[in-house]
Amino acid sequence: MLKIDWSSIEPVDVMTGVTRQTIDGANQTLVRYVYQPGAVFPVHHHPQEQITVVFSGVISFSIDNETVTLTAGEVAVIPGNCPHGACVIGDDVVETLNLLSPKRENHPSA
Amino acid sequence: MLKIDWSSIEPVDVMTGVTRQTIDGANQTLVRYVYQPGAVFPVHHHPQEQITVVFSGVISFSIDNETVTLTAGEVAVIPGNCPHGACVIGDDVVETLNLLSPKRENHPSA
Repeated sequence: MLKIDWSSIEPVDVMTGVTRQTIDGANQTLVRYVYQPGAVFPVHHHPQEQITVVFSGVISFSIDNETVTLTAGEVAVIPGNCPHGACVIGDDVVETLNLLSPKRENHPSA
Repeated sequence: MLKIDWSSIEPVDVMTGVTRQTIDGANQTLVRYVYQPGAVFPVHHHPQEQITVVFSGVISFSIDNETVTLTAGEVAVIPGNCPHGACVIGDDVVETLNLLSPKRENHPSA
């Protein structure tokens, strides 16, 4: 399918306050995350490089023991296999797009 | 650099009415395009798969002889080596993110 509408993809509850919609290409995986205030995404890692683009709210990323706070208009580049986690700062809903390359097979729930 | 602000990346004029800002990872290239009304991006192709995410305006893509019109909230997945071009429909500025994987080396001006 050449054209996809985000509204046609059912959001999956990943954990408390975090939903995910996923589009897989052949070479890459695109994930739209919505984080509610208070949400925490535990530290994890995966072999894919991750680029996170923030569209709303404020989110703090722990990336390989550094802490980086991102808001709308900011982007983080997280190398493959690098441990990272995130938590929402403040009262605004956070929306991000995460770009994973190569494609993420068997996307786990956390 | 873990954190990048779009505003720190100077937009490049790609052609009349089209600017581009690029962030390269190790495995992928993220490009923010802004198209002015009337802009036309000629048909071209590249080996990388391209996922285009539309944030504002209306843009018509020619993808391998099909025409697909996209607006905010819509996404196109364009296989590697597939000929594609685009033109703005209507009077609104179009903003997209294009995700290229694998990384696009030596990004040409068109």
